[in-house]
Amino acid sequence: MKILALDSSGLVASVAVTENGVLTAEFTVNYKKTHSQTLLPMLQTVREMLDLKLDTIDAIAIAAGPGSFTGLRIGSATAKGLGLALEKPMIEVSTLAGLAYNLWGSDKLICPIMDARRNQVYTGVYTFHKMEEADPERHGEEAFAYRMETVLSDRAVDIEELIDELNALGQEVIFLGDGVPVFWERITKLSKVPCTYAPAHANRQRAAAIAALGGQYYAEGRIVSADEHRPEYLRLSQAERERLEQR
Amino acid sequence: MKILALDSSGLVASVAVTENGVLTAEFTVNYKKTHSQTLLPMLQTVREMLDLKLDTIDAIAIAAGPGSFTGLRIGSATAKGLGLALEKPMIEVSTLAGLAYNLWGSDKLICPIMDARRNQVYTGVYTFHKMEEADPERHGEEAFAYRMETVLSDRAVDIEELIDELNALGQEVIFLGDGVPVFWERITKLSKVPCTYAPAHANRQRAAAIAALGGQYYAEGRIVSADEHRPEYLRLSQAERERLEQR
Repeated sequence: MKILALDSSGLVASVAVTENGVLTAEFTVNYKKTHSQTLLPMLQTVREMLDLKLDTIDAIAIAAGPGSFTGLRIGSATAKGLGLALEKPMIEVSTLAGLAYNLWGSDKLICPIMDARRNQVYTGVYTFHKMEEADPERHGEEAFAYRMETVLSDRAVDIEELIDELNALGQEVIFLGDGVPVFWERITKLSKVPCTYAPAHANRQRAAAIAALGGQYYAEGRIVSADEHRPEYLRLSQAERERLEQR
Repeated sequence: MKILALDSSGLVASVAVTENGVLTAEFTVNYKKTHSQTLLPMLQTVREMLDLKLDTIDAIAIAAGPGSFTGLRIGSATAKGLGLALEKPMIEVSTLAGLAYNLWGSDKLICPIMDARRNQVYTGVYTFHKMEEADPERHGEEAFAYRMETVLSDRAVDIEELIDELNALGQEVIFLGDGVPVFWERITKLSKVPCTYAPAHANRQRAAAIAALGGQYYAEGRIVSADEHRPEYLRLSQAERERLEQR
């Protein structure tokens, strides 16, 4: 079971390949270059390093939003192109769920926040539960021993409103994502629950997390065709918003 | 504070750059090519992607062992060369501590196992503690909110002996590393504590984890000069062992 995963939902561009519960390669760049300059060359570099034949891939996992409109379109277009050409299914993984999956197995509330401008964040709240019974079909590294569950669904929301909701939940929260440098001072000031921030190796988008969580979705049959796939923007684009306001 | 990190201690070759608590780039390959073929080209690719001037790096973090003798020598030689040429300090991070740091913030015992052949694993047991008081100098993503502590020190040990020790500790354990596919059946059979195995994005060496943990060591002054650095093999090489046996 080989998965190719792409995430270009934010500033980060990331490509990963996993096979049977193990990472074969991952290339992540978090730099000011545009994804149209980085994503395909990175995929090409990974292919060369692995002598990877693309037709050996079983599915393409994509960080399907929310995130930057342009970034999501580049990622989705690339993944759809690959899916159509290779006739392979796609696995849509919420960008926020992928971020939260970085902290696999944590017993805290996990709150990814992506800066959505205008005082808002794209966010969801997640938690991990240990599976009571191991799937006899899956062992060792493929066992999905912890299942991630959604506490609050993905949405765009004012940061103060999010903090109120987390205060109401009353549990320790770990924040991560590119919203942290923008909002951590406000969070630390307004939160009534213990708040911490994930460190460098776990606080931004990783295609490996998209691939790992995508592998679980695939096992559950949660796939779409390349034709069916659409990114989930969660909010209207600026152009759409302005047109609506003009009416 | 910019850190370049290398890990070529096992089958995985990995290069990462972090800056002020955020990952700038990471390139990881887990494939049969030898590290002499992969590590420097990967570093070169990362440099080009980031327009990275090596003299802007503040320190070089290295996965300092245990692991494959050849892999460790290639990683250490590369890091020492860079450190000497750039006149920058090195940060030695145990390969096993780096693996465990993948599961940052977990409340379980973390047990990285690397296949050391002859029924042995290189292993240590780690756990995370939340810092009571935040360092006022460090906030947000640089705060090191959880500190990883050693429960059982790094060593080479028979797998059965390790399982006995973990049974005596009596807590849930998460295993990871290239020893898992070799030993998970034995572990599952002999363990008297709940055992799980980390998934694809968190179960092998990552230079980003070496950089993140290295950043904490650096803040604590735990650095060496390139001249002082030596890898920690934990065991005699096969040639040394055979020479000793002959005497």
